[in-house]
Amino acid sequence: MHIFYSERHIRRDAKTELSNGRLVAPYECPARATLILDRLRQARLGEIFAPREFGLAPALRVHDADYVAFLESAWREWTAAGHEGEAIPMVWPTNRDRARRPEAIGGKLGYYALAADTSFTEGSWEAAQAAAQVALSGADALAQGGRAAFALCRPPGHHAARDLFGGYCFLNNAAIAARFLRDHGAARCAVLDVDFHHGNGTQDIFYHSGDVLFASLHGDPRQAFPYFSGYADETGAGAGEGANANYPLPRGAGWTDYEAALSDALKRIADFGADALVVSLGVDAFAGDPISFFTLGSADFTRMGERIGALRLPTLFVLEGGYAVAEIGINVVNALTGFQQA
Amino acid sequence: MHIFYSERHIRRDAKTELSNGRLVAPYECPARATLILDRLRQARLGEIFAPREFGLAPALRVHDADYVAFLESAWREWTAAGHEGEAIPMVWPTNRDRARRPEAIGGKLGYYALAADTSFTEGSWEAAQAAAQVALSGADALAQGGRAAFALCRPPGHHAARDLFGGYCFLNNAAIAARFLRDHGAARCAVLDVDFHHGNGTQDIFYHSGDVLFASLHGDPRQAFPYFSGYADETGAGAGEGANANYPLPRGAGWTDYEAALSDALKRIADFGADALVVSLGVDAFAGDPISFFTLGSADFTRMGERIGALRLPTLFVLEGGYAVAEIGINVVNALTGFQQA
Repeated sequence: MHIFYSERHIRRDAKTELSNGRLVAPYECPARATLILDRLRQARLGEIFAPREFGLAPALRVHDADYVAFLESAWREWTAAGHEGEAIPMVWPTNRDRARRPEAIGGKLGYYALAADTSFTEGSWEAAQAAAQVALSGADALAQGGRAAFALCRPPGHHAARDLFGGYCFLNNAAIAARFLRDHGAARCAVLDVDFHHGNGTQDIFYHSGDVLFASLHGDPRQAFPYFSGYADETGAGAGEGANANYPLPRGAGWTDYEAALSDALKRIADFGADALVVSLGVDAFAGDPISFFTLGSADFTRMGERIGALRLPTLFVLEGGYAVAEIGINVVNALTGFQQA
Repeated sequence: MHIFYSERHIRRDAKTELSNGRLVAPYECPARATLILDRLRQARLGEIFAPREFGLAPALRVHDADYVAFLESAWREWTAAGHEGEAIPMVWPTNRDRARRPEAIGGKLGYYALAADTSFTEGSWEAAQAAAQVALSGADALAQGGRAAFALCRPPGHHAARDLFGGYCFLNNAAIAARFLRDHGAARCAVLDVDFHHGNGTQDIFYHSGDVLFASLHGDPRQAFPYFSGYADETGAGAGEGANANYPLPRGAGWTDYEAALSDALKRIADFGADALVVSLGVDAFAGDPISFFTLGSADFTRMGERIGALRLPTLFVLEGGYAVAEIGINVVNALTGFQQA
């Protein structure tokens, strides 16, 4: 398995996250990546490469140009306006379809955000770009004929929509990779999202696309972030009708419930006839995760990987969430090991 | 002039406001009301009454029942969920028209909010109800034949929409009063909003109503909170087409610019043939306001009151914003004094 990693993730090192009415140290922290890296090295799962550089063009295949320009200038605008804290969205349009974009950064932040949990900081854009290059390098490895790759992306991406950040995500690494695979030989691509939280950004990006199937297992949106998407009746629209599959699961769901949904999702992917698979690999379905409510054990991630491997598709794993930092390495490595053993 | 005030405003005493990426002591604080009260007593502008109780029915004429039920239960749900900080919205639907309401309080908060500046706290609902009764008591004084009344409302109301809180507002006191006036003899009612910030909630509530004219002078939404409304081309819809008038003004606007817009707004109100006028009286157009960018002096509020008084309409002043606490009393009293002198 080819593994891709960039040290530039460390540039995303926010000090504040709005959580339960307080500003706390962010759950999505640099240690997550370094602990996974350590565990990957111990497990000798494969060689670890620095990413190639693909520039911004592949990201612009799934994100709007004005949004990418905002990400590029947001921190500069925030500091130029004299603000001293990290940049946290504070007011938003209640109907974005009709909203005009403000000029002041205080308004633009909310215009381009779906949540206030994600403080925009110096270095966030640099890290987000690096994460996208890591994902693209993994996709390129598949496009070159590789069977499997792991993109150790940080910050994660699956909440980032076409023109929205939030949920710790800025650029949608998995979506950028899936679009790259489509642009480089795969006639059909599937994205399987096993992160605890609904991949609302990925859904948004591909909702009208019939050539990319999106399937997501996640906490019931009535009870879990991001709350406003992830229902089972969101099945795609237009050319994408039928190419979006959500599996909301209840509080306390363990491997038995999870496996049933996963089996159904994998069958859909097989039936779809995908040439390549991107897995949004969050490991926050873990019982010990501090901000999630499933009860998977570490061994269940091995089982999850085995099931995914049984599809026999060229597969790119893209790191998403997982906040039980002490166990994050073992859970990620278990999923990848299970895949290789399948 | 009849003046209405309730000590229950003190129940709204939040400790945190999300501002510029930090949690700060709220600008909208209890001292605002007590300092205005002191100044009103010194100026002997009129007798100060406790509000009568009108119950929730008048509020339900402009707010949705599910929203009011949310306000009633929000703090209880928040604490029952084990959260320790004040209740701050953290994630929101990007298109509210299509969004389903989550069950968990963490999602409901964002569903019913338009901004994260306003921490929901124990006592917020009690204070908001009291403020509505204060406004209703003022409206009732006009309905009984009074020429003028001042409702010393706290928390303010003009950002609260039919089913959204934010901008320090929960119930829209001015809109509730205007609707009460319509329900008690006024065939047509005008709301003039001189708060620095666009009265987006009031606009939302009356946007389709032809019997209530809304006119607002405020900081250009491209540059100022609440950012996503307040443009000059928002003129009402349906039966309300032409009954909404926005006057966005640029950074640094002083009395000359302000007076020109005010004159136009007052002419519209006269032409509209209103039987009663509600003034959303924020005094944050003041040069010393910490979160606004106009440059009115204290004497300009006297001039503003004189202009409004010259309309010769039964007039209810409803307190909205104003955060230069040291001068808030003099600026409010100046506006009311100018009105009485007209």
